[in-house]
Amino acid sequence: MDTQTIKIVIAGPRGRMGEEAVKLVERTPHFQLVGAIDHTYNQMELSKVLSGAPDVTIYTDITECFTETAPDVLIDLTTPEIGKKHTIQALEHGVRPVVGTTGFSDEDLTYIGRLTEEKGIGAIIAPNFALGAILMMKFSQMAAHYFKDIEIMELHHDQKLDAPSGTALKTAEMIHQVREPKPQGHPDEKETAEGARGANSEGVRIHSVRLPGLIAHQEVLFGGEGQTLKIRHDSYNRASFMSGVKLAVEEVMKVDQLIYGLEHIIG
Amino acid sequence: MDTQTIKIVIAGPRGRMGEEAVKLVERTPHFQLVGAIDHTYNQMELSKVLSGAPDVTIYTDITECFTETAPDVLIDLTTPEIGKKHTIQALEHGVRPVVGTTGFSDEDLTYIGRLTEEKGIGAIIAPNFALGAILMMKFSQMAAHYFKDIEIMELHHDQKLDAPSGTALKTAEMIHQVREPKPQGHPDEKETAEGARGANSEGVRIHSVRLPGLIAHQEVLFGGEGQTLKIRHDSYNRASFMSGVKLAVEEVMKVDQLIYGLEHIIG
Amino acid sequence: MDTQTIKIVIAGPRGRMGEEAVKLVERTPHFQLVGAIDHTYNQMELSKVLSGAPDVTIYTDITECFTETAPDVLIDLTTPEIGKKHTIQALEHGVRPVVGTTGFSDEDLTYIGRLTEEKGIGAIIAPNFALGAILMMKFSQMAAHYFKDIEIMELHHDQKLDAPSGTALKTAEMIHQVREPKPQGHPDEKETAEGARGANSEGVRIHSVRLPGLIAHQEVLFGGEGQTLKIRHDSYNRASFMSGVKLAVEEVMKVDQLIYGLEHIIG
Amino acid sequence: MDTQTIKIVIAGPRGRMGEEAVKLVERTPHFQLVGAIDHTYNQMELSKVLSGAPDVTIYTDITECFTETAPDVLIDLTTPEIGKKHTIQALEHGVRPVVGTTGFSDEDLTYIGRLTEEKGIGAIIAPNFALGAILMMKFSQMAAHYFKDIEIMELHHDQKLDAPSGTALKTAEMIHQVREPKPQGHPDEKETAEGARGANSEGVRIHSVRLPGLIAHQEVLFGGEGQTLKIRHDSYNRASFMSGVKLAVEEVMKVDQLIYGLEHIIG
Repeated sequence: MDTQTIKIVIAGPRGRMGEEAVKLVERTPHFQLVGAIDHTYNQMELSKVLSGAPDVTIYTDITECFTETAPDVLIDLTTPEIGKKHTIQALEHGVRPVVGTTGFSDEDLTYIGRLTEEKGIGAIIAPNFALGAILMMKFSQMAAHYFKDIEIMELHHDQKLDAPSGTALKTAEMIHQVREPKPQGHPDEKETAEGARGANSEGVRIHSVRLPGLIAHQEVLFGGEGQTLKIRHDSYNRASFMSGVKLAVEEVMKVDQLIYGLEHIIG
Repeated sequence: MDTQTIKIVIAGPRGRMGEEAVKLVERTPHFQLVGAIDHTYNQMELSKVLSGAPDVTIYTDITECFTETAPDVLIDLTTPEIGKKHTIQALEHGVRPVVGTTGFSDEDLTYIGRLTEEKGIGAIIAPNFALGAILMMKFSQMAAHYFKDIEIMELHHDQKLDAPSGTALKTAEMIHQVREPKPQGHPDEKETAEGARGANSEGVRIHSVRLPGLIAHQEVLFGGEGQTLKIRHDSYNRASFMSGVKLAVEEVMKVDQLIYGLEHIIG
Repeated sequence: MDTQTIKIVIAGPRGRMGEEAVKLVERTPHFQLVGAIDHTYNQMELSKVLSGAPDVTIYTDITECFTETAPDVLIDLTTPEIGKKHTIQALEHGVRPVVGTTGFSDEDLTYIGRLTEEKGIGAIIAPNFALGAILMMKFSQMAAHYFKDIEIMELHHDQKLDAPSGTALKTAEMIHQVREPKPQGHPDEKETAEGARGANSEGVRIHSVRLPGLIAHQEVLFGGEGQTLKIRHDSYNRASFMSGVKLAVEEVMKVDQLIYGLEHIIG
Repeated sequence: MDTQTIKIVIAGPRGRMGEEAVKLVERTPHFQLVGAIDHTYNQMELSKVLSGAPDVTIYTDITECFTETAPDVLIDLTTPEIGKKHTIQALEHGVRPVVGTTGFSDEDLTYIGRLTEEKGIGAIIAPNFALGAILMMKFSQMAAHYFKDIEIMELHHDQKLDAPSGTALKTAEMIHQVREPKPQGHPDEKETAEGARGANSEGVRIHSVRLPGLIAHQEVLFGGEGQTLKIRHDSYNRASFMSGVKLAVEEVMKVDQLIYGLEHIIG
């Protein structure tokens, strides 16, 4: 057989992301859901508490779950605190964790990294599973080697509190890793209305648009003589994260160390 | 015959806009170039000083030109000062002026308006002949009746000194004529990097992008529940002004008063 | 008081559109929901069968509903058949109908039109309430007076069966009302891969993009010398229809005849 | 010194691309123009026949040119036939060629490749120097690993004869190298107007827009669940090729083999 079936346990199956992950596993032929971990409903069938879910058992005890279901991979979509514990417990049981929570300290990552080496199995922790967004950032970093004049426009619904968005800041940061700080625009340019030229991040300008109707969008625009290059990502709903979860599950089976951030398994 | 031939004199035929206007008249079947007005080269053939131009005579004296060529329309693409004089002289000779210079005072306009009524012929003065830009502004004003949350992004080459652009400011002004001032974004939104949310024009946010390679572009974005509407104009070169000049020449033949701004002959 | 409160009854409150309409009325200060019409749940409170709805009574009999609640406007979001009956009954009771169903024949419209004149009150029937889409079509028709070269790109999710979309065809039709048929592209252009130049609708080219992730989007692109103008509508969800319903309710109070299609109350 | 000055000879300095190349070399601090090769004007100063060019000598004999000016690099922007000869002559004189002409056969490339190895110096032949277009194609190929549903829209002025464009076909070809052929859209989708769904290249749909005003643009759109990724290149004029020529000149100094296509020196 070309593709081995991967046996999967999902922690947090009733959360918004967890629910999507259950659907993902169900519709992926070589993925098989063998159990779920939740803080309640011990020993109940997941199908009883989550409509459309398959008939797998819910466990409140992770050790019992791993022993009885023998999974290859744990997809953890719980909270930072619990996610951290689950990651370590999974590795200790020889289960490869794919973790979507944030809040891991450098110390945590060092510890987990050492654990993966000890056990000789992979682990993937990703603050962002939206594959399109990861590609946008990766391509932006690559393009910044060749086009040094760059502006970022991020567009979100008007319920968003912070500007710029985390993704815009992360994109700028990745650009700064390969591009020297550089003033942009005309040296004598003048804002006749304050703020028109956007936020200045080592020369890269960031513009934040907030309008009702918008969801989550970003454009990175590169200018060179006689040409421009634009990379745009539109995220319409949470389902967008699932392509990244799928990729991470497939990749975690192939590696034997900790990978932090999906950008490192792309390209 | 369906379309009467319109006899045209161009003032300023060797300027950048004038040169385009000569081409425009040449390739429009029902337009006929009958003379040119310039501050030099009196009585020379235009074709001798402007490659590709037809064999019409250059006049340094506008009265002589009008008497000898009997034009229907004067296209004036000179300077504000001269343009003003030419406009009045044309009306006095019964020639309908289409004028592309700025700098007319309210007093000038009142005087010229009265002159058109007296003579019973039309005149069109337009600070901007880019028809696509005019339509973008007009549509933006119309859409602002229905979508009250609006952001403007204007994008220009990085040799531009001022931000925002004149067109962006004019667009905002036209929106303000139909929309009450209104704060946009979340009431508690917070700029973690100054300028990210752009310039604030009575609530409408304006973002100015400056990059090498860009020419002159503007987007007006409207947000409403579950939808967005975008109007974008891209101007690639001066030829873009000629569709507006053509329209103005055709319109000036049909009206018998002063029209200031192409937005008033559209729609 | 500046704005009179408008008393509203909604027919079909539990349908997908009806549910959005209930929310719309609830959050609009000068709109007041006074009753609901449904084929079941007679005399129950709407709040009991629709979470978040206000405490208004459901009626299965429209006459009883109108008599007891004395509404100004009926918003009908039922089926074509029922919508037609409701429209006539509303007018006969002096209630102004705003109807979102299709399927009215020319005969129906003539009859309803005569009824509005007799009663001296307005009625609005709209096959499409997405205000942004209506504006896109309206602006496209206006722009087609000035830019004769036009291409339409419509982009939808890949579960859509028909290409081009109804909105693209309707847009082309509105353009054809003001533009003569005209071949576009180079007279000698050659498709080296069949279909590359899209569908040909009297010269206007229509391109249909189908991809997972997309929702419902359309661009209309106008080209002129040295410039392009683009009008784009993005529809993200059903809530996008509500701005059109709101506008129609406000307009139906001001008119005393039948209006068919929101494009006639815009601009 | 950080960056060594690179001594350059340009063949074809009076052609449209050659003229841009002369400007490029002039404004790049670590590039130095030491001579020019032309089929006429032997021993004249380039500045005499090309306004704004520096005072370097024109040679009609390439051997004489190389002997007297001892360049590091030859930039050849002549014709396929002459470009081929020049490439070989340059290598034989120890001069690294950067060649922008097409028409090299596989046999030619094998021969030139062997010559570079013999001489231990680099050569770069690139059918396309527009760096932004190269990046767009490269990123599209990378993204096709993760997003299997792809459509290409290319937009050009309406004087273009062939549809789709060469760049669109090349992009599809690069995608096909990494993606299995795959039907796109709904299995039962139906074109009610022929051509609406574009050209079908192993499932990738290609749409060609042709309008006056447009220059040369391409979008590659990727769809995945809940998200889309778009990569767009806008080429406004020939100057856009110069960033690629600059990169090639810098790279050819570092390599000791033949590189065919700029995509191989990117990323």
